[in-house]
Amino acid sequence: MTSTTMPMLDTYPQSINLDRRRLAATIDALIACSEACTACADACLSEGMVAELTKCIRTNMDCADICATTARVLSRHTGYDANISRTLLDACAMACKSCGDECASHAEAHEHCRICAESCRACEQACRDLLASMS
Amino acid sequence: MTSTTMPMLDTYPQSINLDRRRLAATIDALIACSEACTACADACLSEGMVAELTKCIRTNMDCADICATTARVLSRHTGYDANISRTLLDACAMACKSCGDECASHAEAHEHCRICAESCRACEQACRDLLASMS
Amino acid sequence: MTSTTMPMLDTYPQSINLDRRRLAATIDALIACSEACTACADACLSEGMVAELTKCIRTNMDCADICATTARVLSRHTGYDANISRTLLDACAMACKSCGDECASHAEAHEHCRICAESCRACEQACRDLLASMS
Amino acid sequence: MTSTTMPMLDTYPQSINLDRRRLAATIDALIACSEACTACADACLSEGMVAELTKCIRTNMDCADICATTARVLSRHTGYDANISRTLLDACAMACKSCGDECASHAEAHEHCRICAESCRACEQACRDLLASMS
Repeated sequence: MTSTTMPMLDTYPQSINLDRRRLAATIDALIACSEACTACADACLSEGMVAELTKCIRTNMDCADICATTARVLSRHTGYDANISRTLLDACAMACKSCGDECASHAEAHEHCRICAESCRACEQACRDLLASMS
Repeated sequence: MTSTTMPMLDTYPQSINLDRRRLAATIDALIACSEACTACADACLSEGMVAELTKCIRTNMDCADICATTARVLSRHTGYDANISRTLLDACAMACKSCGDECASHAEAHEHCRICAESCRACEQACRDLLASMS
Repeated sequence: MTSTTMPMLDTYPQSINLDRRRLAATIDALIACSEACTACADACLSEGMVAELTKCIRTNMDCADICATTARVLSRHTGYDANISRTLLDACAMACKSCGDECASHAEAHEHCRICAESCRACEQACRDLLASMS
Repeated sequence: MTSTTMPMLDTYPQSINLDRRRLAATIDALIACSEACTACADACLSEGMVAELTKCIRTNMDCADICATTARVLSRHTGYDANISRTLLDACAMACKSCGDECASHAEAHEHCRICAESCRACEQACRDLLASMS
């Protein structure tokens, strides 16, 4: 997969209030995490022990939705509003933490949970790094 | 439009940690705000003075995405995680405030901005009320 | 819930190639169906017999996503492209049919599936009526 | 960006009715196209000649939404329904074609439209290839 995130950021015709490289890395982490969570929810649904994975499925769905929305907001620079980015990054880091914890608790039993937990951890860190760079 | 939000909440088979009536009202406000913002962004795009409305369009798009995601998260009760709901409601109230302010500044010139600003105000209030009831 | 769909459509500053009343009714049906499917997926997750509802949960998630996207596309009128609306409405009617059938098969056991099936049927019909009016 | 799409597909615990490599390539093309369209809509909003780009912005928004939803549907395999995948892929290929044509017409003036057009073309082709492999 060749990401179009950095090439597209490079063509934005006005200034951007954040470091473009860090921003692109965060957007890519969000997109990868959203996809991993969508796939993990579905893989959990097909496990024989699905009844023990319902919290994992639900948290995956939340995390997928929140990461996708955060990636979109961070991909927009026109009329930038730091308050929206900041509070949303905070909520997204929280969702990634919760989902990473939940998936990690099933990582030994299910490889999809192990990969998804890693993706959530990486995304949480990227969100927190970007947040730190904003203040 | 007959909302299915309250009837569906009533059929949830387990307990819900929030007042169902307040929850349904918030979800409905989020859905209405998301739709108003999507429509307002498009109406702004078709105004002759679109160049003066670019911040409004962008904020509308953010608010539409964040409200839609918040409505989904609040519509899930399995494996409830108060931390996700709380931080997301905080981000959503912020997006509604920013979008409400921006739309309000065009309310005299554009009826779609006036209606959208009202929808954002109502949604911001619903988010804050629900947040207050959670602590 | 007071829908903002028709009031917002009334403020669109250019002409719209479709009957505004029918369009608003379809958008409202899509929004209601998307919400019902999101809630039904979560209610199914909390049923003791979740292992027998995995196809229902998955179809609910597809239908929720497709209805939400179709509502957004139909809420935009700038640079209207009938080909996009037509093929998407066709896909959406199909998703509503599949989800309506699946939910209907659980309607006697689960009230959330019964309500959701009704919402899917109404949405499928609205999509087909709008499609018919476009040709 | 390290895509998690193929690793996650490899962990799905049941059989999948489609070639996993082709499926992963399509999902990745959809995700990349959705991101390119979101960024292109915003870059267009910040161009001085935004009034001439309103159809491009609108088509970008449609294509971003439809590609994101199609990526999600293709990432689910539980309770697979070929009718949903088929009609949605058809709608998605159409949206990519429309958006690719629109962006291509601005490619000489705007580098973001050139990159986005390429992403739309690649995604349209991936959707059509997957569709062809399904029949």
